[in-house]
Amino acid sequence: MSPTAARPDPDDTTRIRPMTYVATQTAPSPVQPRAGRLSPLGLDEVELAPDGYWGRWQQLNGDVIIEHCRSWMERVGWIGNLEAAAEGTLPAARRGREFTDSDVYKLVEAMSWEHGRSGDPALDDRIRELTAIIGRAQEPDGYLNTNFGRPGQAPRYSDLEWGHELYDYGHLLQAAVARHRTAGRDELFDIATRVADHVCEVFGPDGIDSVCGHAEIEVALAEFARLTGEPRYLDQARLFIERRGHGRLGEIEYGPEYFQDDVPVREATVLRGHAVRALYLAAAAVDVAVDTGDAGLLAAVETQWENTVARRTYITGGMGSHHQDESFGEDFELPADRAYCETCAGVGSLMLSWRLLLATGEPRYADLMERTLHNVIATSPGRDGHSFFYANTLHQRVPGHPSDPDEQSRRASASQRSAWFEVSCCPTNVARTFATLGCYLATSTDDGVQLHLYAAGRIRAQLAAGPVELDVATAYPADGRIRVVVGEAPASDWTLTLRVPQWAEGARLTVRGEVADAAPGTVEVRGLGTGDAVVLELPIAPRFTRPDSRIDAVRGTVAVEAGPLVYCLESADLPPGTRVDGIVVDDAVPPRPEPDAVVVRGAVVSASEGGWPYGDPVATGSREPREFRLGPYSEWGERAPGTMRVWLPVAG
Amino acid sequence: MSPTAARPDPDDTTRIRPMTYVATQTAPSPVQPRAGRLSPLGLDEVELAPDGYWGRWQQLNGDVIIEHCRSWMERVGWIGNLEAAAEGTLPAARRGREFTDSDVYKLVEAMSWEHGRSGDPALDDRIRELTAIIGRAQEPDGYLNTNFGRPGQAPRYSDLEWGHELYDYGHLLQAAVARHRTAGRDELFDIATRVADHVCEVFGPDGIDSVCGHAEIEVALAEFARLTGEPRYLDQARLFIERRGHGRLGEIEYGPEYFQDDVPVREATVLRGHAVRALYLAAAAVDVAVDTGDAGLLAAVETQWENTVARRTYITGGMGSHHQDESFGEDFELPADRAYCETCAGVGSLMLSWRLLLATGEPRYADLMERTLHNVIATSPGRDGHSFFYANTLHQRVPGHPSDPDEQSRRASASQRSAWFEVSCCPTNVARTFATLGCYLATSTDDGVQLHLYAAGRIRAQLAAGPVELDVATAYPADGRIRVVVGEAPASDWTLTLRVPQWAEGARLTVRGEVADAAPGTVEVRGLGTGDAVVLELPIAPRFTRPDSRIDAVRGTVAVEAGPLVYCLESADLPPGTRVDGIVVDDAVPPRPEPDAVVVRGAVVSASEGGWPYGDPVATGSREPREFRLGPYSEWGERAPGTMRVWLPVAG
Repeated sequence: MSPTAARPDPDDTTRIRPMTYVATQTAPSPVQPRAGRLSPLGLDEVELAPDGYWGRWQQLNGDVIIEHCRSWMERVGWIGNLEAAAEGTLPAARRGREFTDSDVYKLVEAMSWEHGRSGDPALDDRIRELTAIIGRAQEPDGYLNTNFGRPGQAPRYSDLEWGHELYDYGHLLQAAVARHRTAGRDELFDIATRVADHVCEVFGPDGIDSVCGHAEIEVALAEFARLTGEPRYLDQARLFIERRGHGRLGEIEYGPEYFQDDVPVREATVLRGHAVRALYLAAAAVDVAVDTGDAGLLAAVETQWENTVARRTYITGGMGSHHQDESFGEDFELPADRAYCETCAGVGSLMLSWRLLLATGEPRYADLMERTLHNVIATSPGRDGHSFFYANTLHQRVPGHPSDPDEQSRRASASQRSAWFEVSCCPTNVARTFATLGCYLATSTDDGVQLHLYAAGRIRAQLAAGPVELDVATAYPADGRIRVVVGEAPASDWTLTLRVPQWAEGARLTVRGEVADAAPGTVEVRGLGTGDAVVLELPIAPRFTRPDSRIDAVRGTVAVEAGPLVYCLESADLPPGTRVDGIVVDDAVPPRPEPDAVVVRGAVVSASEGGWPYGDPVATGSREPREFRLGPYSEWGERAPGTMRVWLPVAG
Repeated sequence: MSPTAARPDPDDTTRIRPMTYVATQTAPSPVQPRAGRLSPLGLDEVELAPDGYWGRWQQLNGDVIIEHCRSWMERVGWIGNLEAAAEGTLPAARRGREFTDSDVYKLVEAMSWEHGRSGDPALDDRIRELTAIIGRAQEPDGYLNTNFGRPGQAPRYSDLEWGHELYDYGHLLQAAVARHRTAGRDELFDIATRVADHVCEVFGPDGIDSVCGHAEIEVALAEFARLTGEPRYLDQARLFIERRGHGRLGEIEYGPEYFQDDVPVREATVLRGHAVRALYLAAAAVDVAVDTGDAGLLAAVETQWENTVARRTYITGGMGSHHQDESFGEDFELPADRAYCETCAGVGSLMLSWRLLLATGEPRYADLMERTLHNVIATSPGRDGHSFFYANTLHQRVPGHPSDPDEQSRRASASQRSAWFEVSCCPTNVARTFATLGCYLATSTDDGVQLHLYAAGRIRAQLAAGPVELDVATAYPADGRIRVVVGEAPASDWTLTLRVPQWAEGARLTVRGEVADAAPGTVEVRGLGTGDAVVLELPIAPRFTRPDSRIDAVRGTVAVEAGPLVYCLESADLPPGTRVDGIVVDDAVPPRPEPDAVVVRGAVVSASEGGWPYGDPVATGSREPREFRLGPYSEWGERAPGTMRVWLPVAG
């Protein structure tokens, strides 16, 4: 029931001893550990109500986002690169950056999960078409990449720092896992197996003694091992993890921490360097730790997560403070206006926290997942499904140019979402995440079901004692009331566990008419029978949140949150000519809820202009009191180009 | 006497009508405008006392810094590139980045000014050697570049965005100006003339209709026109300036504002994009405006300067908030911990302000020059003359690695200076600035001398009425007392003008025993005779300085200044284990001066660790009151790798 977990004990191997053994070959879920406190449910066990918050996103993904990604990749030639490989027209015909193959694979992964969920036969056809194209591009020894190895191209594996060949493979393997778990063995599995075998041969203990500049192959090999039951793939994932951190990669401008080659994974105490690379690597380390019973490695990653969340994470859950190298900043270096918070880092954070939640059962991991899903991952795509933020700033100072729906963006910060990017890792990452959303709602153990995220829908789980079915009705996060009705329950005793978010002081749980306080952490209910209902009421009244005093960039400001949602002020909600940077709020007056909005009291400051902005005192202008309407951060930037801020200066 | 100038009137052409006409061909000073309120003095007219603050720097430059730069450029092959051009071994033998030629030219410029000042014959030999090498590398049609135009290299002018060919020429022309003004016409002048003629031919009105991605040729051509009296060079400089801002350069990731190709110079209202590029361009625009009587262009640059200083400048005078593209940030985007403040931007700012001071006579330009010299330019080099900061951050969060005196740095931020850089524009820029330091102290008009910067030394000027000689005695900035003794004065009336810095409220001037208040701005003294003394007393007691409330990054903090110096707190001055980020100061207790230091009252905060750094309230730790010793910012980083901060959180 405590929101704060005890420090991980690296010698405590019991924490990752299997609670249940799941036959992983067919369960339709992206992560199927061989051990851990909690077992994931499959896509076929969780059904999101199509009109619920996450159900709507999943629907938009199936209806619009996936096809948006496919058509853009056709248009910009990234699918064409694979066709050109078969036709022998590379390198002349090649288009796009060096890692475009990976986005085709992430698209196939997203399509596969979505097909597994919806059964859409048109999607099945698309997958088969793309699989055939990928298959024709593969070389006889398993090698597969459109950017290396041909006359006129650099040799295979000649640029491990930046070449992304193994990174690309990783996304191919994840696509094959998705396809196999949702549709059974097909050609994609065979392609992936040839790739995995090729990697083990070329990079095995007697092979090239190095790693890929962008971690990803590790997490994919670990899952491919789970799919196939082939320990060689797990061994290779472990080998890659152990090799990293010893300076095997070449020197680059950003230093070895950029690709986590500065410190071995099991010795590091915090995530650092390129945020997506760091998070993918940490996720892989959890997989390897869990499947090999390596408690020391698991404890190391838990410590890294803990320090990263306490010191290097934005209030949105966003990670990565530097534009220059897309990296984590130093501790407490969290500038709102230069927040990078790449969407893919949000996906990587979700991957990591989900694996740690399965391994340990600790609710803090689900807390961060919820925050990140609502305020990073759901912020990236526009409500039309045709535009995306790559970076997710917390403070937009200038409106920037309108986004052209027919143009590829160069990814510079902007106050509007872009249709596509030269580096377009984010849209496909959003698509594959949305297609698997249901998987993150709940888990099971031998004798219970655990609800981690709240969304309207139906959950089924097979416990040792028999099947459980739960109907969840809620308008969360718009409303804090979550009603769970037991549709089916085993005859013998079982436990329903509900997460109470860390911010939800004052939550109440009603079971069979009896109301009790539910402190942040988890709350357990035993012995529910068919037809019983449980109601969890989370206090989602808007609140002011203050930053740790060590975060220099937002000293003297407050943010507004309501439930899991971070709010923001947009210039579109201010009178014309008023700047979001020209206001202060009165933090003595609590924020007031309105439909789809929060209202705060404050003032517009008319700054008096001076020639030099430093002095004692500095000239200040007049203040005109008024109220400000704040909307959910995830919905910002949907109107004309404007400005926005999450952290609001306090009057005084 | 007012520190704030009236808004420039673009129709007021009288402001730049010549006050005096200076024969520019031989005066040993880098900038010799054909018009303007004030006339520069030559290196031969201002002598810095070798034991004064700036005299010591100039001495170190002549004794150590210039030779340090030369030996490194020999070692890393940048001089060798020019030799290889003559030997025909390019491109195979080429070393370093595309713009290394420019650093050899900046070295020759620094050597030329230093030779002009000191008369050191060994330096003269070095200049002749390098000139011969450069001359042999020049092609018959005047083209000169080691990175383009040969088989195996890209064609000439095929990459104006990034190729830096015209930028390199600019530094060559500036070197030739320095050499000619200090030693008369020699081979370097002939080389430069061939380059200038080549540029006018290739990029003239009927030539390539574009500009260089890095402004610099403009300011150099304008000065070369002054040296030679050849209006074609001035016309070409003006043509380059008018061409820019219309999107002639190709699209790049950072957008056209990176190289100021977004808005025409005369339409822009603020400096933006790459800071060094923007400042060099603005300096050139002043030269062209002044020499062509273009009051509108001058007014545009004045407005840009004004808005940039009011909204985009650090307290140190540093400019440039972004590491990613080395650019100015948006208005009030001035994060201390990601301050880039490239040393070269400090030099560019000095170039711009000096030209505006000469054109307008307004003391605000000298205010910024003084601030920038003391807190950016004097911060870059270590006191050993063998190490340099490239970026000048205002907040170093982590100590970083010790700097290796035998290694080229990749320029990443660090808490110690580096011996040399892969991109090593800064050391030679410091060297050429230090070699001309005397030129910035004072100016003359027909009937007066104006003192802008205070340093111990002797100043001579030829007025219409006769010669003036002034002896300046001061320990400034360690002491606020400046004593000026008139060694020689004309018989007829003349005026001595002294700048009173904008921060110097309460300054007092003693003339012939009479004491009067001297408000910030300028103060004039008439009719001084030989032997008369004037004493200006500037209040340099340490003071707290507060930032404009719109600078989010330093809200709730104060800085400490004393006279023109910004102070900082270093971990080296804290008890072991205390972090500079773990303190607060009490701004109700005035800072107290101590020898070479300032002491402030405050407390060490023992932060209590929480899992999530946002809440209400956020956990705070205990406070242990104590005093902190602050040293001049320009002297930071001279000890073991440590941490540092300029802006100190206020207790509360």
